[in-house]
Amino acid sequence: MKIVIIGGVAAGMSAATRLRRLDEHAEIVVLERGEYVSYANCGLPYHIAGTIAEREKLLVASPKYLRQTFNLDLRLQHEVIAIDPQQKIVTIKTPQQPTPIQERYDKLLIAVGSQALQLPIPGSDLPQIHTVRSIPDVDQINQLLADGARHAVVIGAGYIGLEMIEALQQRGLTVELVELAKQVLPLFDHEMVSEVADLLQQHGVKLHLGASAQRFVPTNQQIAVHLSDGRQIKTDLVIMAVGVRPASQLAQAAGLTLGERGGIAVNQHLQTSDPAIYAAGDVIEVQDTVLQQPALIALAGPANRQGRIVAEHMLGRSSRYHSSQGTAIVKVHTTTCAMTGASEKSLQRAKRAYHKIYLHPNDHAGYYPDAQQMHLKLLFAPADGRILGAQIVGGAGVDKRIDVLATAIRAKMSVHDLTELELAYAPPYGSAKDPINMAGFLASNLLDGTVKFWYAEEYPAITEHALIVDVRNPDEYAAWHIPQAINLPLAELRAAIPSLKAQAEGRPIRLHCMVGMRSYIAYRILRQSGFENVATLAGGALTLKAFTH
Amino acid sequence: MKIVIIGGVAAGMSAATRLRRLDEHAEIVVLERGEYVSYANCGLPYHIAGTIAEREKLLVASPKYLRQTFNLDLRLQHEVIAIDPQQKIVTIKTPQQPTPIQERYDKLLIAVGSQALQLPIPGSDLPQIHTVRSIPDVDQINQLLADGARHAVVIGAGYIGLEMIEALQQRGLTVELVELAKQVLPLFDHEMVSEVADLLQQHGVKLHLGASAQRFVPTNQQIAVHLSDGRQIKTDLVIMAVGVRPASQLAQAAGLTLGERGGIAVNQHLQTSDPAIYAAGDVIEVQDTVLQQPALIALAGPANRQGRIVAEHMLGRSSRYHSSQGTAIVKVHTTTCAMTGASEKSLQRAKRAYHKIYLHPNDHAGYYPDAQQMHLKLLFAPADGRILGAQIVGGAGVDKRIDVLATAIRAKMSVHDLTELELAYAPPYGSAKDPINMAGFLASNLLDGTVKFWYAEEYPAITEHALIVDVRNPDEYAAWHIPQAINLPLAELRAAIPSLKAQAEGRPIRLHCMVGMRSYIAYRILRQSGFENVATLAGGALTLKAFTH
Repeated sequence: MKIVIIGGVAAGMSAATRLRRLDEHAEIVVLERGEYVSYANCGLPYHIAGTIAEREKLLVASPKYLRQTFNLDLRLQHEVIAIDPQQKIVTIKTPQQPTPIQERYDKLLIAVGSQALQLPIPGSDLPQIHTVRSIPDVDQINQLLADGARHAVVIGAGYIGLEMIEALQQRGLTVELVELAKQVLPLFDHEMVSEVADLLQQHGVKLHLGASAQRFVPTNQQIAVHLSDGRQIKTDLVIMAVGVRPASQLAQAAGLTLGERGGIAVNQHLQTSDPAIYAAGDVIEVQDTVLQQPALIALAGPANRQGRIVAEHMLGRSSRYHSSQGTAIVKVHTTTCAMTGASEKSLQRAKRAYHKIYLHPNDHAGYYPDAQQMHLKLLFAPADGRILGAQIVGGAGVDKRIDVLATAIRAKMSVHDLTELELAYAPPYGSAKDPINMAGFLASNLLDGTVKFWYAEEYPAITEHALIVDVRNPDEYAAWHIPQAINLPLAELRAAIPSLKAQAEGRPIRLHCMVGMRSYIAYRILRQSGFENVATLAGGALTLKAFTH
Repeated sequence: MKIVIIGGVAAGMSAATRLRRLDEHAEIVVLERGEYVSYANCGLPYHIAGTIAEREKLLVASPKYLRQTFNLDLRLQHEVIAIDPQQKIVTIKTPQQPTPIQERYDKLLIAVGSQALQLPIPGSDLPQIHTVRSIPDVDQINQLLADGARHAVVIGAGYIGLEMIEALQQRGLTVELVELAKQVLPLFDHEMVSEVADLLQQHGVKLHLGASAQRFVPTNQQIAVHLSDGRQIKTDLVIMAVGVRPASQLAQAAGLTLGERGGIAVNQHLQTSDPAIYAAGDVIEVQDTVLQQPALIALAGPANRQGRIVAEHMLGRSSRYHSSQGTAIVKVHTTTCAMTGASEKSLQRAKRAYHKIYLHPNDHAGYYPDAQQMHLKLLFAPADGRILGAQIVGGAGVDKRIDVLATAIRAKMSVHDLTELELAYAPPYGSAKDPINMAGFLASNLLDGTVKFWYAEEYPAITEHALIVDVRNPDEYAAWHIPQAINLPLAELRAAIPSLKAQAEGRPIRLHCMVGMRSYIAYRILRQSGFENVATLAGGALTLKAFTH
């Protein structure tokens, strides 16, 4: 059997090496358009930063190693320009040959990844404008830095945009950020990442949120970036990080079916509309684990696992790829932002019912030194408590909790199941009631009616007809409070019930504290003391502040 | 309704506060034998160490706060000495009253925890001998340190024993460890923690493994610890950390049924044989999640969750406690040792079939700085790949992976499910193929016959009839190798097949490398090249060294 693989990075090389391990005798041809295979795409910004000092470290496996160990027919600078599914032939352009050459296949894998989106605006082909997708990209950016670039504009506040900001700052540049959305990390719900915008500003990044680049104009050695809000930024270097799209043109030209979102359509075995042709990685459309609808998910983890499944199925195993849930994480200075599953905005777009809760737990026992607070948002189904998605922002322990929740989503767990998880506890690592358990408790309370929330979105309108009761201590109230709120510390609440009744004059009571713990206790007291219309602020003042930021 | 709770720490206080939140009007009496409630038991060694400098931090919630906020009738130094289930009355001894007093209950919770085991040997009541179970224990130990103790013997190398060793060393003491088992952390499989024994020795701890204390003899201001191996250790302080047993005597005297392991027997609602009497925490026998047999699990997490379930069921909810899986973690200097579910030795004791694999992955991408290697052992069912247990020892990221596996066990996942987990990947946090995915891949390969292992236990006997082939590079082989092994680097393997056939002379081939990756590839090559009897060493030389340590 002769297997041809187009693309030699994550999905392609995972498939090639798995194929060889499973079949010592297959002919395996890997055609890579570029000069590098099997490189660490996700490490590129860190190489620019200098965090990964040696360029060689990005080359996870050398062509020599791959050829020797896996007996691969590995060809660099071989660009496939056409696929003929009828003849089972690919046409290849290579600098070594004056005319295109052809290669026959029995089975074909398209693993060509995604392309960085380019803004279709004037000047976008200027030499100071770069994407960060490959080792040559990085080499060119490094050259501009070596040539004395002092100022950069990063367009796009997604994962790569934020990693590049920090990388360029580490190299001494002044950096401005332009993002079309009114928030950074647009895949996150805005209230979860408003503090990340603050953090960037504290680190000297000038933010242009809700703005877009309109054109790039050369000025002396620099270029001027003209923004939609009328401002102009003169800069030495522009990083375009506005997203990617599947590089599905080749497949489309070959008559393979694309999905509704533009990626190659595949079945669970990752076969395209032609069963001899497989596709894997960023180029395909996958099923979203939670929303059960087509999705484009350009992540290294799924790509690697898909490559493996393709190899197995090509060789007759029944392996399936079920879905992707979009688990992602990014480091912004010492802050970690992570998500898995659906966001509130993606649930709204998909018109799905959901509940949400917020928590602000410590990563480990508060009495042990250096506990760090994290902010956790959990989304779940009103009908049965099934976990739909989660976002966590904080310091230590964020990656751990998002992975537990990613596992819980894959296991189709409900919030009730979270209450039962037995996670590892010793004071340096967690709490006897882990943040994950706490999320389960709180969500279960909401589902069974033990608590009723009001939400930051209702503020300030809510103040017009409800009495806001701040149950924190007087010193906390004095330091900051909602203007319309009265102060009634939790410890004094029971004694104050008669006067609170008088003061409420039949209005609803809307409780809050700092993180939502004390006001939950207050809620329980009032609900059982004759108050009918009571609610406690989900996530407390911390979430309110994040919302109204 | 009047609810009486015996014991005011983890399970008892969780029950009391949940009861109050759910029922503002119940009468809730908490009877605590000691002077403290709701203290951080797990923090005690860290207070002795000075890591938790302020004693007050150990008091998670003060009696004043608990009375005020939760309206609890909280009584300290109230020791229940008898329960009369017929009359629904408890009898209480308290220093404030010359004669025992009585208290009626509608529902009773026994949450009296466990007792530290005392060795029944001469001298065990000497004043220099202490357990670490309570704040008074810690005060007494601190007093001995203040009085000039310079040398300590810790008896028992479990979690508390190891935490106390480090704590006492931080206070400047010389410490020796006595442990009956021939390993530290006896709940772990020995090969997983042999490096922890090394680590302790490197930090100056003298180890007496496989030895027991026979008697304690006072000598001047010190005591002499006489060991089973004939040695004597003169010391200022002995920490007894040889385990705990459920404090079930009170329940037994009241005629309540005990389980086969000596804990109070409870149903899923945590009711004892008398449905008006509940029990929770260390005092009960639970169902083991994996082995499905009775177990004693003295951990704070389960105790807290059990208290909550008792409260709910007392008030008419249908809450259930399903099982405990014994997830546990301990910090030893910068090393983390964690486990969840069954160990190999517990599976052997229970006569259960299992497979095992070993991995030594990095906590994050190797090309990103400061990657730390961890050692991971996964146990799973041969029939269906169901995960039975895991142990991980290493630095960063150990707690994360054990929590993912703890969640997977709770979700009844198989090793195939682990291959599909979509965990958060960016270079500082993980790898595109996370250690958890890798464990799933390797275990799946074993289950479907893609790989066949040989195990460190077979060494050295295996060398008598098999050819050991070390597929590492010559420089690695030169630095260390199995004496009987020949060296045949992976890159040269294909070319060397004819000569290997001659050399094997029909003997089985037993491959190995450093961690098991290269020898797995070699295994696949040889199996498909006419070699029938081939196997690769599970976990490679690293696991072999840990075994033969």
